[in-house]
Amino acid sequence: MTLRKSAPQRAAANAEALRRLGAAAPVLLDVRPAGEVVPGFSRDTILTSGPTLPWPQYVGGQRAAVLGAALFEGLAANETEAERRIAEGAIKVRGCQELKCIGSLAGPYSASMPVFVVQNRAAAGDAGNFGYCSIYEGTNHRRLNYGVYDEGVRDRLRYVGDVIAPALGEAVRSTGGIPLKPIMVSALHMSDDLHSRNTAASLLFCRALFPGLLAMAATRREAAEKVVQALTEDHYFFLRLSMAAAKSTADAITGIEGSSVMSAMAFNCRGFSIRVAGLGETWFNGPHATVEAVLFKGHSQDEITWMGGESPITETIGLGGFAQAAAFPLQKYQGGSPEGMVKRNLSLYNITVGENPDFRIPFLQYRGTPTGVDIFKVLDTGIRPLMNIGVAGRDGGQIGAGTVQAPIECFQLAAKAYRERYGDE
Amino acid sequence: MTLRKSAPQRAAANAEALRRLGAAAPVLLDVRPAGEVVPGFSRDTILTSGPTLPWPQYVGGQRAAVLGAALFEGLAANETEAERRIAEGAIKVRGCQELKCIGSLAGPYSASMPVFVVQNRAAAGDAGNFGYCSIYEGTNHRRLNYGVYDEGVRDRLRYVGDVIAPALGEAVRSTGGIPLKPIMVSALHMSDDLHSRNTAASLLFCRALFPGLLAMAATRREAAEKVVQALTEDHYFFLRLSMAAAKSTADAITGIEGSSVMSAMAFNCRGFSIRVAGLGETWFNGPHATVEAVLFKGHSQDEITWMGGESPITETIGLGGFAQAAAFPLQKYQGGSPEGMVKRNLSLYNITVGENPDFRIPFLQYRGTPTGVDIFKVLDTGIRPLMNIGVAGRDGGQIGAGTVQAPIECFQLAAKAYRERYGDE
Repeated sequence: MTLRKSAPQRAAANAEALRRLGAAAPVLLDVRPAGEVVPGFSRDTILTSGPTLPWPQYVGGQRAAVLGAALFEGLAANETEAERRIAEGAIKVRGCQELKCIGSLAGPYSASMPVFVVQNRAAAGDAGNFGYCSIYEGTNHRRLNYGVYDEGVRDRLRYVGDVIAPALGEAVRSTGGIPLKPIMVSALHMSDDLHSRNTAASLLFCRALFPGLLAMAATRREAAEKVVQALTEDHYFFLRLSMAAAKSTADAITGIEGSSVMSAMAFNCRGFSIRVAGLGETWFNGPHATVEAVLFKGHSQDEITWMGGESPITETIGLGGFAQAAAFPLQKYQGGSPEGMVKRNLSLYNITVGENPDFRIPFLQYRGTPTGVDIFKVLDTGIRPLMNIGVAGRDGGQIGAGTVQAPIECFQLAAKAYRERYGDE
Repeated sequence: MTLRKSAPQRAAANAEALRRLGAAAPVLLDVRPAGEVVPGFSRDTILTSGPTLPWPQYVGGQRAAVLGAALFEGLAANETEAERRIAEGAIKVRGCQELKCIGSLAGPYSASMPVFVVQNRAAAGDAGNFGYCSIYEGTNHRRLNYGVYDEGVRDRLRYVGDVIAPALGEAVRSTGGIPLKPIMVSALHMSDDLHSRNTAASLLFCRALFPGLLAMAATRREAAEKVVQALTEDHYFFLRLSMAAAKSTADAITGIEGSSVMSAMAFNCRGFSIRVAGLGETWFNGPHATVEAVLFKGHSQDEITWMGGESPITETIGLGGFAQAAAFPLQKYQGGSPEGMVKRNLSLYNITVGENPDFRIPFLQYRGTPTGVDIFKVLDTGIRPLMNIGVAGRDGGQIGAGTVQAPIECFQLAAKAYRERYGDE
């Protein structure tokens, strides 16, 4: 029974988890095709959000996104062939997080798609662990990560891969690496939550890149201008960097013996799942989350569908819904009132181990964001983690944005597994 | 008695003032030396903040700033000569606003100093009226506009004039003009008040300049880099653009017959003054304002001194203190609590004619900022306009930041003049 953990031992393990979440120092090092830089990413790999499912279980927009990624990569000539090759195992479909990637909505990755390469330099080990995230496709509501694949989507993916990513990568490399935490800290003081609003962070990132872009402009001005345009055209560009930073931060607590702190939250088309630091890489699955959404014009609530999503990794480290009182402009985008946002944000302190030393909320007199969700506090209080998310429609595409609450079942299953491993105390 | 105004006539005049304040469309057209672009700015002109005073009445930091500007311009070889030449009238010292300029703190201008050229394209008349503002000297607390002139200050002024301004002007001209209102509207959603915090606005302005700066990079990359550095090194660069925009906005209501809406607030070293739309360019003077300040380390309250300031032109159009509930990060810089900032901001709706159609406060569910101070409402309620300001020290330099309340005497004098002109109705 050496695994048995007393309450003080669990508290100590959770304090260590909080310490690592606070000490994380994610640095953007490069932008490269996934197949070149992500360990284990073979030419025939397709990633998608959430715990890996048997192929027949992928449905709707998430299935469409996987097939679209296979077609985009040239792994099949058409959907029928892609279906067959996946079923045969010639194309391998896996959950993003198996390869330290993190998926936005359906989260489709194929080998040639560029990814942000982020290293958590404060993480244990000589070099620090890595996290990867794909690049925002742009403002069009019809995107591969929202389950749509057609000529327009393909062209935008090519534009990102052939034009934006190489220039962005060149500028990033010329800086020697861009520390992301200072950008994130400042952005929270400029009304971003770093999940559904990344307006300031995208500008601050653009400013950090600017010396590199100026150097490029001497010979390739158009490329530099296109990067600036891609970075600042709406509120979302930095989200993928926030997600890669959060992934590398959260992974640093995976495997802390005895810790009951949640280390990931993710959707796939079948439901919602969490991981717990002291329980390794096991997913604990529940039903779909409940959602309150504001929909874009012309859409209705019955269109809302689930096709995956791993961006709640940002909430896992104390951002997004856990920093909503820093981002009052979100009321226009996803609904809610400022007073409600403050109240909800405050309630989350009841389920976390502590407060973030760096991520702070001006309206709460610079109190640190609630950080490190303890699964037992969730079960004791009945307060479930709250997330700010984009909402997908039945026919593909983004149809709105809203807030969701994690289902309690994941926490019940995780607590059961924790007790089985560590005992009842 | 044709001047006599009934209450409905006054209300209509004030509604027109509110309309013009809301309709303003300030556009940055150029950056040029004051002597080249400001009508009436002769080689021997020195401007300084507040209503023009007889030379002997300028004291302390404001006098030092005027003398420093004269020396910087080479109008005298030393302070004694400058004093003599001013006394003789060979150097002309005037209040900034006589020439449509607007002064930050002591507000020193000389002919070679570069200014932002802003046109209010929505103002009455074919071309729209102009406003001008000098350029931020940089992060050093010892600056000419805070009453300090020495070699370091001179070198920084030269750097701004010789390096930053020409490159900035080139980038601005290459864009064909930069509309400032969209930047200001967005910045209020990113925790700026556009008086004491301009962090987001400076970044957004920088982003608007990027295409011009990238074009410059081919031949003058270093200059482009220096401009970006100057724009983003702290929270203040955009203030001068906010001030020039506000000046061109407020001037558009000057002369509306019968309006009791305040059209300017300004300090000089002798006191605080206001203008009223229906009373032309007359200043109504009161004593110094009362201040609540947070001082930089090593400074004490007894050092606080008054050496002028026209940045409350931003409050005049519904920004700064009138938008403080948009800028909770100010609590760290100038004191106060978020709850207090909300309460104070709300109280200002009691003294304004209406709400700004464009400048909106996310925390107040996007309510427009209180805009258009009616001097009679100030007198009826006893609520005085509140401003966010930088605080100057006795020995020169900025020593902190805080909030001030306008003295009631200005409003009493203005009301008396209004009644004399328009009757007692």
